[in-house]
Amino acid sequence: MDARVDTASQAAELRAAIRAGRHDGRTTGLVPGMVQANLVILPAAWADDFRTFCHRNHQACPLIDETAPGTRSLPRLGVDIDVATDLPRYNVFRDGVLVEEATDLTSLWQEDFIAFALGCSYSFEGALLEAGLRLRHQDLGVKVPLYVTDMATAPAGPFEGPLIVSMRPFPPADAIQAIAITSRYDQVHGAPLHFGDPAAIGIADIDAPWSGAPPVLHPGEVPLFWACGVTPQLVLERARPPIAITHKPGHMLVTDLLNAEFARAA
Amino acid sequence: MDARVDTASQAAELRAAIRAGRHDGRTTGLVPGMVQANLVILPAAWADDFRTFCHRNHQACPLIDETAPGTRSLPRLGVDIDVATDLPRYNVFRDGVLVEEATDLTSLWQEDFIAFALGCSYSFEGALLEAGLRLRHQDLGVKVPLYVTDMATAPAGPFEGPLIVSMRPFPPADAIQAIAITSRYDQVHGAPLHFGDPAAIGIADIDAPWSGAPPVLHPGEVPLFWACGVTPQLVLERARPPIAITHKPGHMLVTDLLNAEFARAA
Repeated sequence: MDARVDTASQAAELRAAIRAGRHDGRTTGLVPGMVQANLVILPAAWADDFRTFCHRNHQACPLIDETAPGTRSLPRLGVDIDVATDLPRYNVFRDGVLVEEATDLTSLWQEDFIAFALGCSYSFEGALLEAGLRLRHQDLGVKVPLYVTDMATAPAGPFEGPLIVSMRPFPPADAIQAIAITSRYDQVHGAPLHFGDPAAIGIADIDAPWSGAPPVLHPGEVPLFWACGVTPQLVLERARPPIAITHKPGHMLVTDLLNAEFARAA
Repeated sequence: MDARVDTASQAAELRAAIRAGRHDGRTTGLVPGMVQANLVILPAAWADDFRTFCHRNHQACPLIDETAPGTRSLPRLGVDIDVATDLPRYNVFRDGVLVEEATDLTSLWQEDFIAFALGCSYSFEGALLEAGLRLRHQDLGVKVPLYVTDMATAPAGPFEGPLIVSMRPFPPADAIQAIAITSRYDQVHGAPLHFGDPAAIGIADIDAPWSGAPPVLHPGEVPLFWACGVTPQLVLERARPPIAITHKPGHMLVTDLLNAEFARAA
């Protein structure tokens, strides 16, 4: 209980530092053990379709909370969260095009905005590390490789597009453990969608990721592919809402929830 | 609750039929949903080492209960179980050699016998079928293929030997589900030990199983290998106790426990 209060207060302190402009860098690895969330902000007219899209594509877009109309808080995720100021960096899209980066949304905020918080792979990566597994991209200090697949998301209104996956390699025995563990985290992408042959999900060349660093696989290792939270960003670009705002990748909403609370009972 | 009472009473009825000599065939597929168990009976002088062996090799030898000295009942596994009469067929080993088959152990029973009940893959296979997965060996109506690996069990006293695995093939997406599900059944072998390349665990030719039918793998499918409950039988043969009695494969102890009760909370 003490540990929980302690890390929750560390998360609140980090958000306060971000809000005050004292931290505008990545949140990766900060306040370990706490859930970090992806953020998507849309005008209310677009929110219903986006919510439906998330529900239909739960593995890529695990919706964990949203703001009530007219508010900027997420009381279930943390004390005194202000989604307009508490993330280090935001990407602002107009008509589907990234037009600017911001560290504070106060001047851009519209009364009709709804902010959606989506689960993020940092939670399950934390659980894998706690189980003693190694993450190759972390060991190498590079970004996890992402790929566009030939698997379509289930569309909702204007929102549609291909599923994007992240890849992490493991020897088979570790892969089994990684699958078992992440299957209990269905609010943060859950189990992988695929392992093994990349071509089976439309990845022509595993050495040429769409984003992130080219992977390094050791002999006998198997690539595991998880639905990725970047999927909704690509979907937003294709849907071209007049305005949409997301976190900048790596610059997340740090919540007061423990990753361990996200593991569901089987 | 009604369903549980109903299937438990079906299990008790089946045991009564076996005890009365009205059923001496396989228990495979009978009273679906109920835990079936492997049985190993040893003189008390050998029981401590065997119990330790089971604890050290939990995935292959998941010990779920044992008789109290001087008794033949397993009250936690079912009402009025008599391990000497309630299995359809037994294998009797003397000095590690299978010397006879029996349908009733009354005349062979020794006061110093301890009977061990071990979890069996039927439980997790039931869970896989309930999740909508298909089991190839069941679809083909053949026995699951078993292989002797080059992975050693952890020895205890005279008990040692190689780990035996069973193999079930799946497409990757189903394999992920199979791993996630069986990882919650650690009292019945748990998650697979390995998938993919058979040579990595010392299987020279996947088409030549040690026991069971040669496997049929469809294109794109991956072989998954689970620790197998036949492992202790081979270990008993190598340890050569003066007498040891097991169930005959496929002729199990049918208990009053639901498979679903074996799924542990994550």
